[in-house]
Amino acid sequence: MNKQEVSINPSIMCADLCNLEKSIREIEKEGISTLHIDVIDGYFSPSMPLGIGTIKQLRKITDMDFDVHIMSNNNEFFIKEMLDIGVQQITFHCESSTHIDRLLKLIRKNEVKAGLALNPATSLNDLDYVLPLCDTVMLMLMNPGFAADKNEKQVAYAEKKVKDLYKLIKDRGLNTNIEVDGRVSLEVIPKLVKSGANILVAGSTSLFRSGRSIAENKVIMEEGIMEGLKLREE
Amino acid sequence: MNKQEVSINPSIMCADLCNLEKSIREIEKEGISTLHIDVIDGYFSPSMPLGIGTIKQLRKITDMDFDVHIMSNNNEFFIKEMLDIGVQQITFHCESSTHIDRLLKLIRKNEVKAGLALNPATSLNDLDYVLPLCDTVMLMLMNPGFAADKNEKQVAYAEKKVKDLYKLIKDRGLNTNIEVDGRVSLEVIPKLVKSGANILVAGSTSLFRSGRSIAENKVIMEEGIMEGLKLREE
Amino acid sequence: MNKQEVSINPSIMCADLCNLEKSIREIEKEGISTLHIDVIDGYFSPSMPLGIGTIKQLRKITDMDFDVHIMSNNNEFFIKEMLDIGVQQITFHCESSTHIDRLLKLIRKNEVKAGLALNPATSLNDLDYVLPLCDTVMLMLMNPGFAADKNEKQVAYAEKKVKDLYKLIKDRGLNTNIEVDGRVSLEVIPKLVKSGANILVAGSTSLFRSGRSIAENKVIMEEGIMEGLKLREE
Amino acid sequence: MNKQEVSINPSIMCADLCNLEKSIREIEKEGISTLHIDVIDGYFSPSMPLGIGTIKQLRKITDMDFDVHIMSNNNEFFIKEMLDIGVQQITFHCESSTHIDRLLKLIRKNEVKAGLALNPATSLNDLDYVLPLCDTVMLMLMNPGFAADKNEKQVAYAEKKVKDLYKLIKDRGLNTNIEVDGRVSLEVIPKLVKSGANILVAGSTSLFRSGRSIAENKVIMEEGIMEGLKLREE
Amino acid sequence: MNKQEVSINPSIMCADLCNLEKSIREIEKEGISTLHIDVIDGYFSPSMPLGIGTIKQLRKITDMDFDVHIMSNNNEFFIKEMLDIGVQQITFHCESSTHIDRLLKLIRKNEVKAGLALNPATSLNDLDYVLPLCDTVMLMLMNPGFAADKNEKQVAYAEKKVKDLYKLIKDRGLNTNIEVDGRVSLEVIPKLVKSGANILVAGSTSLFRSGRSIAENKVIMEEGIMEGLKLREE
Amino acid sequence: MNKQEVSINPSIMCADLCNLEKSIREIEKEGISTLHIDVIDGYFSPSMPLGIGTIKQLRKITDMDFDVHIMSNNNEFFIKEMLDIGVQQITFHCESSTHIDRLLKLIRKNEVKAGLALNPATSLNDLDYVLPLCDTVMLMLMNPGFAADKNEKQVAYAEKKVKDLYKLIKDRGLNTNIEVDGRVSLEVIPKLVKSGANILVAGSTSLFRSGRSIAENKVIMEEGIMEGLKLREE
Repeated sequence: MNKQEVSINPSIMCADLCNLEKSIREIEKEGISTLHIDVIDGYFSPSMPLGIGTIKQLRKITDMDFDVHIMSNNNEFFIKEMLDIGVQQITFHCESSTHIDRLLKLIRKNEVKAGLALNPATSLNDLDYVLPLCDTVMLMLMNPGFAADKNEKQVAYAEKKVKDLYKLIKDRGLNTNIEVDGRVSLEVIPKLVKSGANILVAGSTSLFRSGRSIAENKVIMEEGIMEGLKLREE
Repeated sequence: MNKQEVSINPSIMCADLCNLEKSIREIEKEGISTLHIDVIDGYFSPSMPLGIGTIKQLRKITDMDFDVHIMSNNNEFFIKEMLDIGVQQITFHCESSTHIDRLLKLIRKNEVKAGLALNPATSLNDLDYVLPLCDTVMLMLMNPGFAADKNEKQVAYAEKKVKDLYKLIKDRGLNTNIEVDGRVSLEVIPKLVKSGANILVAGSTSLFRSGRSIAENKVIMEEGIMEGLKLREE
Repeated sequence: MNKQEVSINPSIMCADLCNLEKSIREIEKEGISTLHIDVIDGYFSPSMPLGIGTIKQLRKITDMDFDVHIMSNNNEFFIKEMLDIGVQQITFHCESSTHIDRLLKLIRKNEVKAGLALNPATSLNDLDYVLPLCDTVMLMLMNPGFAADKNEKQVAYAEKKVKDLYKLIKDRGLNTNIEVDGRVSLEVIPKLVKSGANILVAGSTSLFRSGRSIAENKVIMEEGIMEGLKLREE
Repeated sequence: MNKQEVSINPSIMCADLCNLEKSIREIEKEGISTLHIDVIDGYFSPSMPLGIGTIKQLRKITDMDFDVHIMSNNNEFFIKEMLDIGVQQITFHCESSTHIDRLLKLIRKNEVKAGLALNPATSLNDLDYVLPLCDTVMLMLMNPGFAADKNEKQVAYAEKKVKDLYKLIKDRGLNTNIEVDGRVSLEVIPKLVKSGANILVAGSTSLFRSGRSIAENKVIMEEGIMEGLKLREE
Repeated sequence: MNKQEVSINPSIMCADLCNLEKSIREIEKEGISTLHIDVIDGYFSPSMPLGIGTIKQLRKITDMDFDVHIMSNNNEFFIKEMLDIGVQQITFHCESSTHIDRLLKLIRKNEVKAGLALNPATSLNDLDYVLPLCDTVMLMLMNPGFAADKNEKQVAYAEKKVKDLYKLIKDRGLNTNIEVDGRVSLEVIPKLVKSGANILVAGSTSLFRSGRSIAENKVIMEEGIMEGLKLREE
Repeated sequence: MNKQEVSINPSIMCADLCNLEKSIREIEKEGISTLHIDVIDGYFSPSMPLGIGTIKQLRKITDMDFDVHIMSNNNEFFIKEMLDIGVQQITFHCESSTHIDRLLKLIRKNEVKAGLALNPATSLNDLDYVLPLCDTVMLMLMNPGFAADKNEKQVAYAEKKVKDLYKLIKDRGLNTNIEVDGRVSLEVIPKLVKSGANILVAGSTSLFRSGRSIAENKVIMEEGIMEGLKLREE
């Protein structure tokens, strides 16, 4: 196992939204291939970071993979919008979905990777039957929509939940990705990677940490990832 | 009466969303003082041009007035978000509002201009009692959320509705602004201004018309405005 | 003016739902060319007479025109379903529509006749701007969803409302159809036709009145229509 | 015309909710025969003054007439609850009702007086066809649910709206009651009565005004009513 | 154990909806005693096969047991409608029910069999406490509302989920029926019966399979059932 | 362990709602320190026992702890109202909450005890990750909103569910309170306490049981509690 197996997905929310093209170029320059994009509708959570119109224009200026995390009460609408735009992974929340199997298949039959996102409190039981349909399971380690609130912390049970999910995936003989989102800071990366996380949503506490360049932060993240992977193997 | 009395409000949706700062500077350079910003939630209409996060960052880089048009099913939430950001006018739709008087007052007591927006089909009767509370009435001349659909046209009754509203305002002895939104093209500006419109949302059929610069289009718009004003006075 | 100008549209709800083909043949035999079909979703009104699946199969066995009256809280969904099936007129309720102009145009651009239905209490003001887009305005003369309740009567203001609408249409120089639905009985047909109605939804109090054959009831209806038309001209 | 023709309906919200029986006795002692009870569900407006359970127990201890004002998003449920309890008048809001005619009839067929309530901004057009079915039309002169907020004032167009409604009723040859609710203070009673109001919801700015007893305030209210009636006749 | 212990419930959706009486007689002639009726509201899933009005008329022409599967967002309304009609089993979805225990009891106290339906992705944990209240648990083996879409397949985990449920029921010492719905084809019947299914919803891939009569298909189904039962006992 | 470890929380719904102050004094006199208050919104369950206005006034006349049980579809609104009033424990339902972790933290950061309530049918899996954030887990032993319906009984699986939860808490090394609500009668108290319950909502089948005084019933309750505690220790 090596550091390439863990993906660093920078969150567009942390970019300069008035100069997105410039931000994207900086990220691309660091050899990062996937952009994490949050789509929040203001109903699922009281936040709406950026719009579909913005994502459409972004699609035209970069070849990066788009890893879209939908936080909405009308998942079918937003999934279809994202499929039209042409993104590489779509994750939606089970808490606002009555027809999880159907939505996962809707994404997959368009040859896009499908992910299921779980709120902090949500039990892993929602994965009982559809885990094999998920390319990725995303564990929210902070309440969705509150990334901009400096007082919000990562949940105390983050590590335990990642471990539980990792065990579940291994017990089922699967290779599902574990994506973690919410204060995935330089400090906790080793522990989260050790526990099984392999896609890290990178925001203001890691890649965009103030006081250092993106390149410098990326080096520290990669060290943390290596440390985590080593601990995982032991 | 002169052309200054009619305001040209360029729509942010027509700007380069990946290079907003650059777009804003171009608009500012033309001496335009107000930016029109559409906030659509995906529920009121199937579109979500840009997010609240983007507006927050825009607020930091320009002193232009923000004329925000909310198209949502939860107007109170979006109005409060816009008040927090610091905008200069907030318009919301009566079709999705049970408590119109309350929302108009919520905006006004924050010393922000308040506008009420009417869908194409909506009767002017909704203004019977709250017209004096409105700084602006916005008439949608196209169905909201479909600006990007090239097949969508301005409603056939656009001119008539502007005239009806203008008469209503004059009969009540008021000075309410009439804002028009939806395919307000170079061709129809004279007629709409003549009928009484004095705030023009400027998009892809006027200020951002392809083949000419913003400066060139602005000149044509102003000629149309002058023509309309002259006809109105006759 | 002659009786052909007033259309008798038998309601499918009064047919033998276990032997629809037989019922349709009986109706066709009488030279009736349009079938009135109510689509109620159980939410707009507490009733769901028949399903979309049934309409699909009906479409395959008859060439009659289908005049579909949608009573739902999700008009866009049901309109699209009806367009797929291939019907000749679609009427939806303004009370559950935020985007009336858009839905009327959605129907019309499919070359299907578009109608707007008004609940008994609803003001005609909803027609202020979209009347020219309506092939038909349907006035509900009974509360929707209660056709099967024998205690429900036609509203006392039925005649007045038809007259008001007829005047409005004539004053605007239009030829919009006035469809009436709800206890349009043999007794009231002359008055309703006189007042301006020209599409009659025919149910258990007229065409399907017990004690007489459909053919016999049709003769009485036509006499009532002629009487009404004569009175209208005077 | 005399003062008996104008009813003073004290609002239960201003009573001592921990000692309702005592409050009721005080009100009864003043010869007041009707109690105004607000039922707010927390959704129509962000307030829920008292519950159905409380109204049920109130019903057992007094023979006063209950004039119930429902402010809810599910009027049918609350109307049925009130009918079960046995109240004398039920008023509901047109803004949250799709089936106004049906609900008015539901109340009336139980031999209870039916009222339709209009928010401040709501046009009188909603009364076009159902006015004859209304025993009472209630004009909200303040935004519903904000009675407890001392900063909320009566709307500036209160008098005009009462006059418009009074004219409408007289023009139609009806005797519909005009109930006014929202800061119906000692100061404005003469003007509101003059304009046509004949049921006054009495709260903290009139009958329960601090510094005087209920009896004393009632005398001042009655003087205001007499003054208003005299002015109306002129 | 014998084939009588497994029930074949033909789906009304596969009958000739324009000649239901004829279809029912054909089914009755084969000695089939239960009819499976899907009630979909268009909201829970985008489909509405047939209406309540149709079921009411069906009830009058046959003594077959009605096994009603409600797929709705307002289960209480549809359950009460079905209880009024007089059906023999009512199954509703846990995904759209907040008060599962209450609804199960509402059905049971009317002496009708109660079933709980689970979407493909739904965990069996929803049965933790109410399994003893269920006469039947229905496992959806296809996403509800898509039976008419030829591209929709049975979920890959169908057999596993039936087995899991069967084990759960046996471990708890219960005799709950396991009903399976969704592409229960001639090919998979042996496996599903082996795994524990004992009520088979029969549609276009089994009893109504084209190229053979209902009688012929029924023979093949029964052979499959016998094969499955034999395998189960081993 | 002693009887003080089990709390008797009398339900305000059983008090004399027209003479609340008197009722509160009687309860205080018995040395009871916590009042159980049900807030139902009429949507989550068809009941609305008492209003927020009543709770506000109650807060002013007593120093008892308020243990508020919210049964609503808009938990955030009602939680904030209760925090404003100043209560000591707030319990809300997981079935109507998408963001359970967030709401628990909202309560806790106001230094109020946080509880999560589970409907009878709800699996304990909803506690998988947030159990340590709960001061209390409330098990509904009757369907919420039906306390006034004499035919409603406690669920058959009450004892089992309390035991399961008690085991879960002990296995996790926690001290979470187990509150039981719904026909917690004198007869079942020993069994429920034995199984692990330590907060008893006391209503018409225990503390307010007719035929005896509150004081007398309290003695019997305490005996039942002691009996239950003794059995638990064995």
